[in-house]
Amino acid sequence: MNTRTQRELSPFQQRWHSIIFEADTPAGKVFDIILLIVILISVAIVMMESVTGFKVKYDHLFRVLEWVFTIIFTIEYIFRVWCSYRPKAYVGSFYGLIDLLCILPTYVEFFFGGAHFLLTIRILRLMRIFRIFKLVPFLNESKQLALALEHSKRKIMVFLFFILLLTVVLGSIMYVIESDYNSGFTSIPVSVYWAVVTLTTVGYGDIAPVTPIGQAFSALIMIMGYAIIAVPTGIVTVEMSRLRNEEDVDQRICPHCMREGHDANADYCKYCGSKL
Amino acid sequence: MNTRTQRELSPFQQRWHSIIFEADTPAGKVFDIILLIVILISVAIVMMESVTGFKVKYDHLFRVLEWVFTIIFTIEYIFRVWCSYRPKAYVGSFYGLIDLLCILPTYVEFFFGGAHFLLTIRILRLMRIFRIFKLVPFLNESKQLALALEHSKRKIMVFLFFILLLTVVLGSIMYVIESDYNSGFTSIPVSVYWAVVTLTTVGYGDIAPVTPIGQAFSALIMIMGYAIIAVPTGIVTVEMSRLRNEEDVDQRICPHCMREGHDANADYCKYCGSKL
Amino acid sequence: MNTRTQRELSPFQQRWHSIIFEADTPAGKVFDIILLIVILISVAIVMMESVTGFKVKYDHLFRVLEWVFTIIFTIEYIFRVWCSYRPKAYVGSFYGLIDLLCILPTYVEFFFGGAHFLLTIRILRLMRIFRIFKLVPFLNESKQLALALEHSKRKIMVFLFFILLLTVVLGSIMYVIESDYNSGFTSIPVSVYWAVVTLTTVGYGDIAPVTPIGQAFSALIMIMGYAIIAVPTGIVTVEMSRLRNEEDVDQRICPHCMREGHDANADYCKYCGSKL
Amino acid sequence: MNTRTQRELSPFQQRWHSIIFEADTPAGKVFDIILLIVILISVAIVMMESVTGFKVKYDHLFRVLEWVFTIIFTIEYIFRVWCSYRPKAYVGSFYGLIDLLCILPTYVEFFFGGAHFLLTIRILRLMRIFRIFKLVPFLNESKQLALALEHSKRKIMVFLFFILLLTVVLGSIMYVIESDYNSGFTSIPVSVYWAVVTLTTVGYGDIAPVTPIGQAFSALIMIMGYAIIAVPTGIVTVEMSRLRNEEDVDQRICPHCMREGHDANADYCKYCGSKL
Repeated sequence: MNTRTQRELSPFQQRWHSIIFEADTPAGKVFDIILLIVILISVAIVMMESVTGFKVKYDHLFRVLEWVFTIIFTIEYIFRVWCSYRPKAYVGSFYGLIDLLCILPTYVEFFFGGAHFLLTIRILRLMRIFRIFKLVPFLNESKQLALALEHSKRKIMVFLFFILLLTVVLGSIMYVIESDYNSGFTSIPVSVYWAVVTLTTVGYGDIAPVTPIGQAFSALIMIMGYAIIAVPTGIVTVEMSRLRNEEDVDQRICPHCMREGHDANADYCKYCGSKL
Repeated sequence: MNTRTQRELSPFQQRWHSIIFEADTPAGKVFDIILLIVILISVAIVMMESVTGFKVKYDHLFRVLEWVFTIIFTIEYIFRVWCSYRPKAYVGSFYGLIDLLCILPTYVEFFFGGAHFLLTIRILRLMRIFRIFKLVPFLNESKQLALALEHSKRKIMVFLFFILLLTVVLGSIMYVIESDYNSGFTSIPVSVYWAVVTLTTVGYGDIAPVTPIGQAFSALIMIMGYAIIAVPTGIVTVEMSRLRNEEDVDQRICPHCMREGHDANADYCKYCGSKL
Repeated sequence: MNTRTQRELSPFQQRWHSIIFEADTPAGKVFDIILLIVILISVAIVMMESVTGFKVKYDHLFRVLEWVFTIIFTIEYIFRVWCSYRPKAYVGSFYGLIDLLCILPTYVEFFFGGAHFLLTIRILRLMRIFRIFKLVPFLNESKQLALALEHSKRKIMVFLFFILLLTVVLGSIMYVIESDYNSGFTSIPVSVYWAVVTLTTVGYGDIAPVTPIGQAFSALIMIMGYAIIAVPTGIVTVEMSRLRNEEDVDQRICPHCMREGHDANADYCKYCGSKL
Repeated sequence: MNTRTQRELSPFQQRWHSIIFEADTPAGKVFDIILLIVILISVAIVMMESVTGFKVKYDHLFRVLEWVFTIIFTIEYIFRVWCSYRPKAYVGSFYGLIDLLCILPTYVEFFFGGAHFLLTIRILRLMRIFRIFKLVPFLNESKQLALALEHSKRKIMVFLFFILLLTVVLGSIMYVIESDYNSGFTSIPVSVYWAVVTLTTVGYGDIAPVTPIGQAFSALIMIMGYAIIAVPTGIVTVEMSRLRNEEDVDQRICPHCMREGHDANADYCKYCGSKL
């Protein structure tokens, strides 16, 4: 962390900083666990609010709880700004914006009358869980998964780009074949949507071919999709296998040039030639 | 096994113990095979009982058979307790509880009048098959599979947790997009259910997007799911590959050049030629 | 081949034997290609015959063609018996029975009046293609695939057995949850069928849960299926990887003990210790 | 490139050649990016034209834009011929034919009155994107993916051929089982289509078995498909893994001990310590 732009914190602020932003102290852990529970309950409330039956029955309770959670999160947000070493950096950061987005909808709805979708923005509170994730013992595993995906990102993007072009071409061909038979292929965009549904083997069945040629061509697309699904799997597996092997690499450090990464069967440093 | 808490068994009890709990003797094998057949038939009866056509026709037969099986399993249960070295440990063990759960529903139904679901608990008899599994020649294979899953458990749990958060967020977005168009996205929980159905490429089609934006967003989710399915596959494949390799590598070290990595079938060091 | 039980063939029979049973000679290749084409056409005719529109229009033509193909295959069958070194072994072999099954239905139908399904048995003619497969240049590839599947057969069987038990248990639970809500879960066998459709991510949608608990439980099953699909993939990939690596293994043979299978980096024979 | 058959180009033509056919110069890059945007817009227009709502509203605009794009692509086509070193080779090449197919439909429609499908041929303009692909930074990744698929092509073809035979046999059996129960299995080709839909786990649900035997057999097919999907995944993963490993292994041999297998970043032999 760049210490130059940090402001001075009072000991009281420092204590709260370690509780809110860190998870090493017992108090910090308790804070994170309470926050996790509050977030989960608030998300559950938003989800239940969308169910018509519950909405009618518990409307008042939902409103009260929503204000309770909004106030809790607002106090937490103010505390985070107050005890941050660099308040502006926090406010402008990804998690700072998420934190703000989680409390704004309730106020906006109160003052301006709320649009329907404002309420659902609060589901973004779930994103806050990722920050608390630092306290779970699975951090190492999630890092490895993220690393494997990071390494195979470029190959997967090329693959997805190719899939996109393929579905546009396949969808258009199906549109030409099926559009006169009233089977749901009403336009090229809809046919492309169908091609994605088919190639990924989701297969809703809301749109399905009815002509013999259309069905034959669909069968071809499905078998193609069956073979294509092997590609991302192959990419990620190879990348994970490499990461796993690198873990196994020898931990020895060359006594002469101090570099590591030597194979397990190496007798001499591969960088400077001195004996390991 | 801790022998201190074992009670003394008479020779007669010991004989039955080896028949019931072990599969090494011919009598034990015969017992296990008969038990396997009885379990499979009793499960088949429960399944057939649920079919309305059969239920009406053979109601009496089903009742008689159910009592026959319950009495067989009750006798077996009493025998297991009677000839066990540690009866209390058996009764409290996982399989002990399963064994009890398999016979209780019939009695409960007889004395108190049966709830609908009581009958179906008897399907749990299938779980008993896993115990008999010890006699099949596939034990080693199932151990290897279980080990590979055990090793990748933590990574898979992180993955599933991530999938859960993702489906909640994606489902909520689809709810905002589609809820006004009467297309089945009636609440956020239902939309989350749809997101799971779509991301896992199951695709029932009971709920399907009808708006262009909803269909475009769905296509995006499907392609995402297509790439995401690579992750658990990669995890398990890498783990299995490692287990397979570890099996093959010998732990022996050459007494002359002190190098290892010899094949399991090697008699001489492949580096210096001295006897292993 | 065991030569003791072979009968003597005249030179004329021998010539036909090499044409019919082997694919090394030009005449044998021509015979195989003609047979391949005749088989494909006859299968196409059977398929088209099942389409009501074609059946009505070309009924007479189909009958004539069916007799033509049956007579061709009958002559071929007689020839195969006549020029075989061991006629009885051929008649009783897998392909001998397939060959007979491909011509019998037409005769049975003619003399006894045909059952509906008799006609479809003729689709088994497709199986005959596998015999001709020996002439295609892909033989090596198909052998490798078969070998990889052969090696992983036991693991896959354990896996499928586990899936079977799992679907019975999951289907029964869904039956208890959904059977009172008229959503298609009419009996345990049907619910087990639904569990297979869901766990394999096929997802027809002919049966779909309607209760919130049923949908939540289904979502769980789907995510489980998403993780489980990794298992067979892992098994086969590891097996293929091993086969591929074994191919790469050094071709050197020990000059002393004449054994092979040495690693590429071995300097001495790992069996007898002599220099390679 | 074979220089013998090249014609002489004037410096003016040469300049245009480098702009149109190459992407190394700034002008060439700008040309490619503009072309990419024009192609994407023209494809989007074709897609929107197929939507009835847009068609009615913006019919005139679509016609004007279509002519604008056709004239742009025509000019580009003439330029490509004019400044090509070997005009005939270009016209007859794959991309030359695609370029022609992209402009012809509009003219054909104008002079002869257009068939419905003529318009959709213009979607083929998307194929032109692959040519421009040379300028993106992902070229290396797409080459690797293509190479891995190229290497596993033969195995995948054997696999798809086997799948084809399997679906014909499975579809025919289902036709025999279900055809009398009015459940959509109206003919063998339709049943084969269903078998593909099921085996690939797409599962539309437009055709679904209704008889108990049919459902049991379907469940079997699905579980089979679940295991079969592992095959192409295994093939591609192994091939990718090999390509990845080959990349990493250095071809250098130690001048002192003559051993190889050094890492790409090694400066000294890891076995004897001498300089590589």
